[in-house]
Amino acid sequence: MTQMMQHCAGLKTKRNEAFLAIAESLRPDLYCEIRHPVGLIETVADAQELHGWKAVQAGEKEDIYQQVIKPGEEFIVDLGTHCVGYITLSFESVGSPPDAPAHVQLIFGETLAEMAEPFSEYQGWLSSSWLQQEDIYIDVLPATLSLSRRYCCRYVKVRVISTSPKFNLRLRDIHIQHVSSADMTSLLPLMTQDSLLKRIDDVSVLTLHNCMQDVFEDGPKRDRRLWLGDLRLQAQVAYYTFEGSADLVKRCLYLFAGVTREDGLVSANLFMKPDVIPDDTFLFDYSLFFVSTLHDYVQVTQDLSTLADLWPTAYRQIELALEHVDDRGIIQDQDYWWSFVDWHDALNKQASSQGIFIYVLSHAINLARLIDREKIIFLEKVQDELKANALKILWDEEKKFFISGKEKQISFASQVWLILSEVGDKEFRKKLIERLYNYPPEIKLRTPYMMHHFIDALMQEGEVERAIMEIKRYWGGMIKLGADTFWELFDPDNLNHSPYGSKIINSYCHAWSCTPAYFIRKYSL
Amino acid sequence: MTQMMQHCAGLKTKRNEAFLAIAESLRPDLYCEIRHPVGLIETVADAQELHGWKAVQAGEKEDIYQQVIKPGEEFIVDLGTHCVGYITLSFESVGSPPDAPAHVQLIFGETLAEMAEPFSEYQGWLSSSWLQQEDIYIDVLPATLSLSRRYCCRYVKVRVISTSPKFNLRLRDIHIQHVSSADMTSLLPLMTQDSLLKRIDDVSVLTLHNCMQDVFEDGPKRDRRLWLGDLRLQAQVAYYTFEGSADLVKRCLYLFAGVTREDGLVSANLFMKPDVIPDDTFLFDYSLFFVSTLHDYVQVTQDLSTLADLWPTAYRQIELALEHVDDRGIIQDQDYWWSFVDWHDALNKQASSQGIFIYVLSHAINLARLIDREKIIFLEKVQDELKANALKILWDEEKKFFISGKEKQISFASQVWLILSEVGDKEFRKKLIERLYNYPPEIKLRTPYMMHHFIDALMQEGEVERAIMEIKRYWGGMIKLGADTFWELFDPDNLNHSPYGSKIINSYCHAWSCTPAYFIRKYSL
Repeated sequence: MTQMMQHCAGLKTKRNEAFLAIAESLRPDLYCEIRHPVGLIETVADAQELHGWKAVQAGEKEDIYQQVIKPGEEFIVDLGTHCVGYITLSFESVGSPPDAPAHVQLIFGETLAEMAEPFSEYQGWLSSSWLQQEDIYIDVLPATLSLSRRYCCRYVKVRVISTSPKFNLRLRDIHIQHVSSADMTSLLPLMTQDSLLKRIDDVSVLTLHNCMQDVFEDGPKRDRRLWLGDLRLQAQVAYYTFEGSADLVKRCLYLFAGVTREDGLVSANLFMKPDVIPDDTFLFDYSLFFVSTLHDYVQVTQDLSTLADLWPTAYRQIELALEHVDDRGIIQDQDYWWSFVDWHDALNKQASSQGIFIYVLSHAINLARLIDREKIIFLEKVQDELKANALKILWDEEKKFFISGKEKQISFASQVWLILSEVGDKEFRKKLIERLYNYPPEIKLRTPYMMHHFIDALMQEGEVERAIMEIKRYWGGMIKLGADTFWELFDPDNLNHSPYGSKIINSYCHAWSCTPAYFIRKYSL
Repeated sequence: MTQMMQHCAGLKTKRNEAFLAIAESLRPDLYCEIRHPVGLIETVADAQELHGWKAVQAGEKEDIYQQVIKPGEEFIVDLGTHCVGYITLSFESVGSPPDAPAHVQLIFGETLAEMAEPFSEYQGWLSSSWLQQEDIYIDVLPATLSLSRRYCCRYVKVRVISTSPKFNLRLRDIHIQHVSSADMTSLLPLMTQDSLLKRIDDVSVLTLHNCMQDVFEDGPKRDRRLWLGDLRLQAQVAYYTFEGSADLVKRCLYLFAGVTREDGLVSANLFMKPDVIPDDTFLFDYSLFFVSTLHDYVQVTQDLSTLADLWPTAYRQIELALEHVDDRGIIQDQDYWWSFVDWHDALNKQASSQGIFIYVLSHAINLARLIDREKIIFLEKVQDELKANALKILWDEEKKFFISGKEKQISFASQVWLILSEVGDKEFRKKLIERLYNYPPEIKLRTPYMMHHFIDALMQEGEVERAIMEIKRYWGGMIKLGADTFWELFDPDNLNHSPYGSKIINSYCHAWSCTPAYFIRKYSL
């Protein structure tokens, strides 16, 4: 059932066709909802707003189909909220019979910045091909165009580049077939009475909804891939929101186990087209999270048959992670992009990775109890040693923080992960949280993904009020700035922050950002 | 059967559904031939060549599918000759699995200038949407893309705008489905022994072939419409080249008669999609050429049933043309673009139009003899008067040239049309031709269309050697400059001439330019 193949220079991968067949049998149907625009807007510079742009209404929805658009003119259609799907436009000509093709440029944006700032000035290091645009040439009018690419947007800019002196254009219709494998009618009820938390839950749910497609995508605008780190968090939220979504988690687990590196290492992410292909990116933490995602799935579903299938893959991640442990019992520090943890160039990943390994081992031990009791003692021994060594070697008694790497870096992330891994006793961890608030390290948390783990650590240590406050401050902060869905990146001190060199390439509906719904619902906040 | 409809401000048109049904029944099948590229080229500046560019071979055809193309790189595929049709491209990725869409720009050109000079610098007054380009975004690789628009090109430039740092592109296949309603296997044999005339005939035939689609198009790159002036010449060539092509002429005649202005005036051109629509452009000469085109068709086919159907439309053009005759019996001069004659801003059209009316009246009289004998005397009287008045009022005895308009302009075109209309006796016309050679007027002939009429006048007056010399000089001149098909515009003294403000918007395969084959074959040159 397993075949070897060569994907690119040097990388050999292993396919388990039986697992891939199970994944394929779980491919979800997509729900489709037709959405029409709510009006026309213009972008106006305003330093108080996200990226310095605010939307000003420029027309009612009826006006969209009245306006005659001449070459050089444009307007921005507002779909009312963040949508993912397939756009259809109908154009007609106004004037003499069209004696030339009409050249129309379409720009799709999750944010106003994508509407206001020209893509031609993009200087980021990710491919500019992610910027959502299309040039269409209409030879015959009237014309109805159903665009074949899936777009992700709240706004659509329609710009007429050229017609001829003899005719202009008018839009007859524009709508989007908004698609998701999440069934809004299966949404579990929400109990909170807090209006801000309710709003945060709404936005979390829409974020998750828009990322749930054939698989759990990380972001429907950019990447659109199945990433393990995102999957783990999406699954946690999905169990508390969309009833029946465990099947999609199961599908994704079988996909990851279905295509691994030759030695069994799970890839950080998978491409789904033209076939299931593992990326040649492997991350220490993401591979380990296969264990946690399987653990959470089994806890929710009690599906021991899936556990039996996938336990060998899960256990293999532990074995491979052990190869990264040095003589002192500490995860080796590495130079290249070896462990993700957070989008932060300056962050040293060693201590966080130590915490993550310990954290994941708890899940492995829980699973071993169900399926492979012989491994329990070994796993517990490894975990105990990693914990002891963390305290012995990574703890700086003078600074009262965990340190990471040769430079003994003190970061927020290192503390969060070593708290989550339950290193030290309750009292020790409580004090460490206090210290984080009183003497916040310079290397802060940068992504909603890492913020999730901070909230999780606060909840674990019983700091419920602080957790709520952080959720309201951070995710509530995005809502104040107009978020329809939660973003890939949010640094309240630098709204233009992008790890990719340009804010317009950031994803503004990103799976790892949807976790407040998990906390609000699980803990009845 | 006739219904009135409003197309655009002020214009009322008349539809004859019976005529349109006959036209529809004659819609031709398209022949399709798959053509593969012959190699890769580069453009190199060379002042001796057309538009200052020459092609240098940059690779064999095998190299097209070897080359790895990175962002910012491009290559130019040479299809070997001028093609019209539907292009299919297949791309594959080279490197890691594609982690971003690939953005590829395609530029299609009839000429090297379209490959070498950026479309972004286009400043002509015709719509830039005619410049053949497409931006494609490929989400999944490998991918086979069958472009839905019909392109007209010898060259295809493939430029990779962006991929990602992790992969590049390679072309697996590129080909064109070359389409035409002309059947190359029905091509009538050519008798000439003259190698240059043979080459000119070849290029004429390919020009006609590539313009023969659903209808006789004027140019398959730009306009793509059925123009009466072009139709008349295409039909003349088609009778001598592609056996059985009279049906396509018949179809086009019924189309023009099927949609006219409310008063019966035939439009200068028709749009074929989304439905048959007459353009709101009416030209004195083009409307009259309906009569000549019908005349030539009946002469070739003896199809009296079609003549019976279409004679009323033909006769109506004569009646409407008579409204333009002033008290002196001369066609009224007008300011706006009222009569075509030639693409020449400075050209006054009065005398030429007088000639054209007289010329067309000969055809009307011939047709009346077959179908409406009662009109003969009237038509002959009109023609005699127009001829007499031309000599009386338009002939400048001192300058020995026909004059045109208030400014008494002496142009080449006026002389040509008054020769073709057989004003004056044989001796008079012979002398006028001598004078044209010895004292060429400043306002020269600009288009192959007007050159055709000059050749026709020379042949009519028995100046065979001169006609051959002019064909070899003018059309041979295009061949020397690398023409695969004959051009819309050719001014040997200004190769960059364009009536549209940019040479790259000119059509380089243009129906009205294909007539040497007619002369070579009809007169066995």
